[in-house]
Amino acid sequence: MPTYKAPVDEVLFLLNDVFHIERYNNLPGFAEASPDVIEAVLTEAAKFCEDVLAPLNRVGDKVGCRRNDDGSVTTPPGFKDAYVKLAAGGWVGASAPAEYGGQGLPTALTQAVREFLYSSNMAFAMYSSLALGAVAAIYSHGSAEQKARYLPKLISGEWAGTMNLTEPQCGTDLGQLRCRAVPQSDGSYTITGTKIFISAGEHDLTDNIIHLVLARIDGAPPGVKGISLFIVPKFLLTDDGKPGVRNAVSCGSIEEKMGIHGNATCVMNYDGAAGFLVGEPHRGLYAMFTMMNMARLSVGAQGLSLSEVAYQNAVAYAKERLAGRAPTGAKCPDKPADPIIVHPDVRRLLMTMRAFNEAARALILWTALGSDVARRSLDAKEREAADDHMGLLTPVIKGVLTDLGFANTVNAQQIFGGHGYIAEHGMEQFVRDARITMIFEGANGIQALDLVGRKLPKDGGRALQTFFAEVSGYIKAHEGDAAMAPYVMPLGRALGELREATAWLMQNAPGDADNVGACSSDYMQLFGLVALGYMWCLIVDAAKAKAAHGGAARMEQKFVLGRFFMDKMLPATAVHLARVKAGAASTMALPAEAF
Amino acid sequence: MPTYKAPVDEVLFLLNDVFHIERYNNLPGFAEASPDVIEAVLTEAAKFCEDVLAPLNRVGDKVGCRRNDDGSVTTPPGFKDAYVKLAAGGWVGASAPAEYGGQGLPTALTQAVREFLYSSNMAFAMYSSLALGAVAAIYSHGSAEQKARYLPKLISGEWAGTMNLTEPQCGTDLGQLRCRAVPQSDGSYTITGTKIFISAGEHDLTDNIIHLVLARIDGAPPGVKGISLFIVPKFLLTDDGKPGVRNAVSCGSIEEKMGIHGNATCVMNYDGAAGFLVGEPHRGLYAMFTMMNMARLSVGAQGLSLSEVAYQNAVAYAKERLAGRAPTGAKCPDKPADPIIVHPDVRRLLMTMRAFNEAARALILWTALGSDVARRSLDAKEREAADDHMGLLTPVIKGVLTDLGFANTVNAQQIFGGHGYIAEHGMEQFVRDARITMIFEGANGIQALDLVGRKLPKDGGRALQTFFAEVSGYIKAHEGDAAMAPYVMPLGRALGELREATAWLMQNAPGDADNVGACSSDYMQLFGLVALGYMWCLIVDAAKAKAAHGGAARMEQKFVLGRFFMDKMLPATAVHLARVKAGAASTMALPAEAF
Repeated sequence: MPTYKAPVDEVLFLLNDVFHIERYNNLPGFAEASPDVIEAVLTEAAKFCEDVLAPLNRVGDKVGCRRNDDGSVTTPPGFKDAYVKLAAGGWVGASAPAEYGGQGLPTALTQAVREFLYSSNMAFAMYSSLALGAVAAIYSHGSAEQKARYLPKLISGEWAGTMNLTEPQCGTDLGQLRCRAVPQSDGSYTITGTKIFISAGEHDLTDNIIHLVLARIDGAPPGVKGISLFIVPKFLLTDDGKPGVRNAVSCGSIEEKMGIHGNATCVMNYDGAAGFLVGEPHRGLYAMFTMMNMARLSVGAQGLSLSEVAYQNAVAYAKERLAGRAPTGAKCPDKPADPIIVHPDVRRLLMTMRAFNEAARALILWTALGSDVARRSLDAKEREAADDHMGLLTPVIKGVLTDLGFANTVNAQQIFGGHGYIAEHGMEQFVRDARITMIFEGANGIQALDLVGRKLPKDGGRALQTFFAEVSGYIKAHEGDAAMAPYVMPLGRALGELREATAWLMQNAPGDADNVGACSSDYMQLFGLVALGYMWCLIVDAAKAKAAHGGAARMEQKFVLGRFFMDKMLPATAVHLARVKAGAASTMALPAEAF
Repeated sequence: MPTYKAPVDEVLFLLNDVFHIERYNNLPGFAEASPDVIEAVLTEAAKFCEDVLAPLNRVGDKVGCRRNDDGSVTTPPGFKDAYVKLAAGGWVGASAPAEYGGQGLPTALTQAVREFLYSSNMAFAMYSSLALGAVAAIYSHGSAEQKARYLPKLISGEWAGTMNLTEPQCGTDLGQLRCRAVPQSDGSYTITGTKIFISAGEHDLTDNIIHLVLARIDGAPPGVKGISLFIVPKFLLTDDGKPGVRNAVSCGSIEEKMGIHGNATCVMNYDGAAGFLVGEPHRGLYAMFTMMNMARLSVGAQGLSLSEVAYQNAVAYAKERLAGRAPTGAKCPDKPADPIIVHPDVRRLLMTMRAFNEAARALILWTALGSDVARRSLDAKEREAADDHMGLLTPVIKGVLTDLGFANTVNAQQIFGGHGYIAEHGMEQFVRDARITMIFEGANGIQALDLVGRKLPKDGGRALQTFFAEVSGYIKAHEGDAAMAPYVMPLGRALGELREATAWLMQNAPGDADNVGACSSDYMQLFGLVALGYMWCLIVDAAKAKAAHGGAARMEQKFVLGRFFMDKMLPATAVHLARVKAGAASTMALPAEAF
């Protein structure tokens, strides 16, 4: 049975010492989030995740969700009680606007809480993630009346939400979407069509489920410019806003899938269901995009979350399992063998996971802080810069953190040997659960295309130039510092490679339209390593300052972890650069028939 | 439902054109394996795997094995019939010695057949692999009487076999083994203890199961030098060699595990079971080692097998699924979208898989040919060289081909997007099945240690020097050939990096005992890439020669695939070298308590 301890101290170190969250006190909601409040929130969240959610993770996997003959869905034992507690604790809407009943806490804080939620029970936590997606869509694009009717209950956790994009014939390419919306005389629409892969599509956790559905209004233009967004409640609301008549939407089946069994992935049938347009007609995709950054940041966090919990369990096993002797001589001569943590190849895996986890957490919190600035700052220039940062880093976080997070669940499982392959220890569940993060909210290949094809050229490359300026400015400012040289020098080299890859793409994309797609994944991985390397410099820097004021031992670990990252992980930038510069030629030379 | 087509033509090209199997006709059994026979065997095997085994792969996963209350185990529907057919076709003992009823076919040929078996149904094929393991152990170390009693039935497939090494407290570190053997007056032993993770430990496919069990004879020295090997039949044989009285060995439970559900992974309880010593007392581990090369080669082949079948299904999906348009302009303007094979990022994944598959197959067949020479040649010098080759390449094949094979099942799954995550398409099964190959028969970290700690220094580095001499000799002989330069030059660079990594290890292993373990996995990966790169040179070379005699189109694909390998895959050698040269310092600097 796996265990989990939320890394509260790590988050506090990052928020307080690395990112100096107090410097953002001019933003609405930040002054209220005093150091005491932040610590209390994290400590409470940790307790809830460790005590309530983590123990339900395996039963969620084993029992899964069941669709009953009447189309209702029963979630795993314990999920409903836990959801009631989650809602009662105010965790669903912790960073939602206070005017609709949220607590308005910084996203940088609630994103840290979401890491804990996903680590302890990703399938469970996804139900509330989907509710937050619905909140974001309605808050940004809904009418005042829609906000008033739906937001308070979604934010309180009394109701849940879903996002309905995918159909059998299309996922990534939403231009092929067929789901139909027919206008009614009362201003509503009837929605007809089938949606698939709908996470949390049907369940027994809440009194109502507010589906957000992409559909095409009769007569709309073809392609993505004819898609509109609709609210389709499971139960239509009565005049006083209570769940009333059942709407014509139902769960046709639950997918049998590789992991996240505790989350019901549904085929949803809309049979002339009543739907209410959100925002303008034909602008549904635009409405979806505005909430995608947050959703993708959250999925990136899932990559970290599963890497973290898998790491923790691998450490416990590596300290407990006895096999062989340390190459430098027996460490536990009184025992039949040493614990396997003495073995350098085991240590290599543990260090790989931890050096990723700490930098990935920093990258997520840094970007979550950016999202706070982008949404809350009163300064337009600040908002623009933060928005640039979000736009640029989001695909990197989603793509790279889920790829590496998944790889780390595999690494953690490997430490268990055969014991990692059997269900009992829970390690193989982490692998199966983590696998979806590379696929949903836009498969990682799509993230790479978003980064290279859309985010790099946007606004004349403004976001990228700002990022380069920040990192190279940091390097310049610290290259004279001998203690920082082992970190700053490799980062400088890696940044140079990223610049070189960027220049190569700018020069070669026009000549061969395939070059972008053939190189985008490697470019994204290269970018991610540079971003994580920069995080390690910031962490080490902050650790040096903090070590001078006590707690030196824990801070000195950061020096070693940062060094390991520079020694063993950052050098992969060179391969990604080589692959970028090899272009599309050999990738595309075979005709399709040759496959 | 996934499909499978055995790559008969690819195997024929490798055996005939790349490795010129006819040149080995001086070896016993090879002359009989004429080109016609080889093609017939492969074609028949392909048919059996495609028509009989592949259709049972998903039901094997879904239904799995069931332990009944009486301790018997029921295999998935269809498995027993298929096993009877497998045995009747002579596939179990195809390369086993003719004197015991085998066909004595070259291992190079039967290993190709095993690729097909694993691709079509790995869980099923493992039952026969285990039987072959028992054959190898008894053939090499059993008495004449034991050979006569057990080999014919194992080779015919009437009986199956198992290997019992792992116990709850030890797997890798067999020195901790506790299973007890008490000598009896009749020369037999009673075996008592618990073995875990026993593949094919109990089932209903055959009339008898011959367990090979490691145990410690009372009074034996501690550690690995006190372990002996025993035959423990499920049913003790009557005097005329038929299954008689039930022995005191039983299946205590079946593990619930991540994949290969069609293979029963058992906890085996030995309660004073009658066992018969194989070979000398206390030399059991040595006996095990002699058959490990073949078993590990087979597991490496499993990595290829799952990569191949996953690739085939990914290709089919990529040709069929419509999404978006080719960057160079619509390829199917009459359809709502182009098939996703037009997208460079999809093509990148397909090319990565295929460039691996073809070179991995070559590496396996080359090494299988080596095993034939090692076992069959009449020339002691030839046998020694072939044995060196086997010893050196086996951990590389096991470790690298399963790591990359698993990664490719993930790549193939990724092409399916959300459809890859649900069970229906079978892609997630390939991922789950492939995951075990990195763990069993010695986890890949152990393979790396075997390579660096044992195989490199063995006999003064003779095997490695021979390998270096062969590859560098090839490079020298071809570096003047302009057509081969795009292949030979990158290989030369990569070989240089492997030499550099080797030199670094030789210089730095003595100074820090942790350096070997901290660098062994990267060294193994680097070695694997060089070996695969060498295979690509041989393949391209042979394809050039063959293209001159017709079939040019298919041969020209090899030029592109080889180029892709050199462009996009081989450059990873640089990272592995950088990691090796970073040594153990940052990997080992933290005290264990810091984790």
